[in-house]
Amino acid sequence: MSRIDDQLAFLTEADKLKSTLRATMLCDGSRHENSGEHSWHIALYAMVMAEHAKRPVRIDRVIQMLLIHDLVEIDAGDNPIHGNHDTAAMAAIEAAAADRIFGLLPADQGRAFRALWDEFEAAATDDAIFAKSLDRVQPVVANLETGGRSWVDYNVTRDQVETRVGTKVQRGAPALWTTLKTRIDDWFSQNATR
Amino acid sequence: MSRIDDQLAFLTEADKLKSTLRATMLCDGSRHENSGEHSWHIALYAMVMAEHAKRPVRIDRVIQMLLIHDLVEIDAGDNPIHGNHDTAAMAAIEAAAADRIFGLLPADQGRAFRALWDEFEAAATDDAIFAKSLDRVQPVVANLETGGRSWVDYNVTRDQVETRVGTKVQRGAPALWTTLKTRIDDWFSQNATR
Repeated sequence: MSRIDDQLAFLTEADKLKSTLRATMLCDGSRHENSGEHSWHIALYAMVMAEHAKRPVRIDRVIQMLLIHDLVEIDAGDNPIHGNHDTAAMAAIEAAAADRIFGLLPADQGRAFRALWDEFEAAATDDAIFAKSLDRVQPVVANLETGGRSWVDYNVTRDQVETRVGTKVQRGAPALWTTLKTRIDDWFSQNATR
Repeated sequence: MSRIDDQLAFLTEADKLKSTLRATMLCDGSRHENSGEHSWHIALYAMVMAEHAKRPVRIDRVIQMLLIHDLVEIDAGDNPIHGNHDTAAMAAIEAAAADRIFGLLPADQGRAFRALWDEFEAAATDDAIFAKSLDRVQPVVANLETGGRSWVDYNVTRDQVETRVGTKVQRGAPALWTTLKTRIDDWFSQNATR
């Protein structure tokens, strides 16, 4: 196998991410979103929202992180933030997936991609913190567009949105959270039983 | 409307690209690919294949071009390269779509995105030429994975693949074409009536 053959094998494997479904619906409510198109959408979010990063970021690195951040879901599936799952067990499954999937690349490139994915997962650098914020923001926007559907499906409270989404978005993109918070508060005030 | 409201309106409009279907099938043949997930996949192609660009490129610009290159399809639809369409009429429809869609952004940002899209369309800079190469390569890989299905559906000859795909890929990523050419030749030699 040549270097290009290995790279094409990785890119063909990556195609499977288009078949991993997420809890989030498209904004028109027509179907569930898949993790491939989600990855595109949040990379576009990064391009558009770069100016709202809390601290200076290298947007090219943020975009690259977002392009690869969900590849492990080819093996591990998507884990909705409002679902129940064993965090430690899931981290182990995702690490094994990263070994396998980034391992398809030429070794030097596989190491670089893996380092970028590890950085995203650790959420300790400014770039990763901002990337994580966008990964939380986009489903909220889709959810508001579809009448709060995921919040109904997963029986989510206002406080849970604040804890699971708000605190993370505020770390990386506080101005975005200020705008979304108004819309979220409106939704919950109109759905008063929650 | 605040600046963030305009940016969110653009990003929500962009969601519609996930409902624009392409001629290309997923690599497992299960369904047609949409232009949102396609845009993700070729941005990932750019990350992986950057080293094979014929001339030096700024890969961050290439990736950003690829992330926005198909947004006009929200209004104009996808035009398969092996389909028949009026190129001038389509260019006018796509330019109007670019006016509308990039016009949703704050003016300064809309101009920057439009300039990047115009650069991609013109295919005159090294970055755009490489980006265009990847946009041609990815469907060929998917097509080979699915047994040449698009070539059968559109009754495509070996010479047409060379003219419509090969010449463009060679401009930006000749090493990739060398690898793919062998696979393409194998396919056509096994489907000898073409």
